[in-house]
Amino acid sequence: MRIEVVQTVEEIRQEQIAGRTVIVIDVLKAGSTIVAALNCGFASVLPVETIGQAQALRSQNVVCAGERHGKKVAEFEYSNSPTAFRIPHEAGKQLVLTTTDGTIAISKAARAAHVLIGCFLNADACIREAIRRQLDITLYCAGTRHEFALEDGLAAGMMVHLARCLVPASKVCDLGKALEASYLQIGKSLPDFLLETATGKRLAQQHGKEEVLYCGRLNEVDIVPVLINKKLVNATSAKPGDEPPTPKA
Amino acid sequence: MRIEVVQTVEEIRQEQIAGRTVIVIDVLKAGSTIVAALNCGFASVLPVETIGQAQALRSQNVVCAGERHGKKVAEFEYSNSPTAFRIPHEAGKQLVLTTTDGTIAISKAARAAHVLIGCFLNADACIREAIRRQLDITLYCAGTRHEFALEDGLAAGMMVHLARCLVPASKVCDLGKALEASYLQIGKSLPDFLLETATGKRLAQQHGKEEVLYCGRLNEVDIVPVLINKKLVNATSAKPGDEPPTPKA
Repeated sequence: MRIEVVQTVEEIRQEQIAGRTVIVIDVLKAGSTIVAALNCGFASVLPVETIGQAQALRSQNVVCAGERHGKKVAEFEYSNSPTAFRIPHEAGKQLVLTTTDGTIAISKAARAAHVLIGCFLNADACIREAIRRQLDITLYCAGTRHEFALEDGLAAGMMVHLARCLVPASKVCDLGKALEASYLQIGKSLPDFLLETATGKRLAQQHGKEEVLYCGRLNEVDIVPVLINKKLVNATSAKPGDEPPTPKA
Repeated sequence: MRIEVVQTVEEIRQEQIAGRTVIVIDVLKAGSTIVAALNCGFASVLPVETIGQAQALRSQNVVCAGERHGKKVAEFEYSNSPTAFRIPHEAGKQLVLTTTDGTIAISKAARAAHVLIGCFLNADACIREAIRRQLDITLYCAGTRHEFALEDGLAAGMMVHLARCLVPASKVCDLGKALEASYLQIGKSLPDFLLETATGKRLAQQHGKEEVLYCGRLNEVDIVPVLINKKLVNATSAKPGDEPPTPKA
């Protein structure tokens, strides 16, 4: 099993997607929001690009969440905020989510054999689910504003470390090894360390520390969002036949 | 003072060069070879792109070194090999060096305010020299075969760490912080750890372990190659006026 890390949205190449399980990592905050939304009761999360697309989908069972440049879209029920979903509610409904650039990585990865969403909240469950699918794995860091984001890199490093513990023969790219070492050095300072990252600092100023700190909690939930027919659903609730068959290793 | 890290040759942008001190990092092996060559007595190292260019420059006081795809150019005196320069000799001569891709980063960085060459062998001296020049700093990892190379990233991480100790108020990009953490986690296993990297493994198979291990020795020399009129000379022997004046911070 090969594990590769891609450090920003722009850099991914076709060969890092095709025939692989791609884990899209966007810790602050789209990835954490999606995981938290499925965990609180939503049946699915549909990422869309524009506010208009989200509005058009609205109905009694479809609620909208989203932000533009860090601010909640005024007419939506929710922002791109994981802490809004800490308490169980909205059982069985669909969430439509649009964010500044958090959904771009998901659409870029859409041609992968499997697309999962990972962050600190579900890191252990997510890498286990990826390994179970028996393909090479690409850890796809979304980054922030076209730059490498330390929090995404640390989450990738955490998943590399977990994968190497579970499958010691895994072949990991040099960047993956560097980020595993970063995680081993810094990980024990999470979640507080998130406030030291460029994105974390900015978001804490905009929205307070609590939300940033929540995104740095490790293995809080065992939900693994998987992309099926453009919607993200929990991997364990996906029905057989929903996804293309996993080839034998 | 800002410190930014660029992780491969292709990725550097004009704004990461202009008005900055750029440290080109190519641990295995062009950077280590240049540092070792100046340390053993060569007055200067002239990087050139082609074997023909190197041949044309040959004279009694100009000797040639180079490799193509890991093999010494047959008619040259030296390969791209730092261990050939461990004993003082060739005093005052010029070395002309051509490598597969090691010199590309140097030519890409040529428009910087200052271009220095750094590696593990001179990491401390190199970052001190860069700080002395009072400009923002770009640590420019050359990588190997267009991919991020862990050894270059660790050397960048080591320089970030030294810089933050010397100038605690430095502003470091997220990748620089990640690599600093990687260095703090892995650095104590150097030089042996170099044999675990993708490039280190390959070079050890081609040329034996000794040369790879030599490149992983920390702060072995205090030579800092600086680019002046297309030639690399030791920064402390550069005459006033050789370089453009350093603006005040």
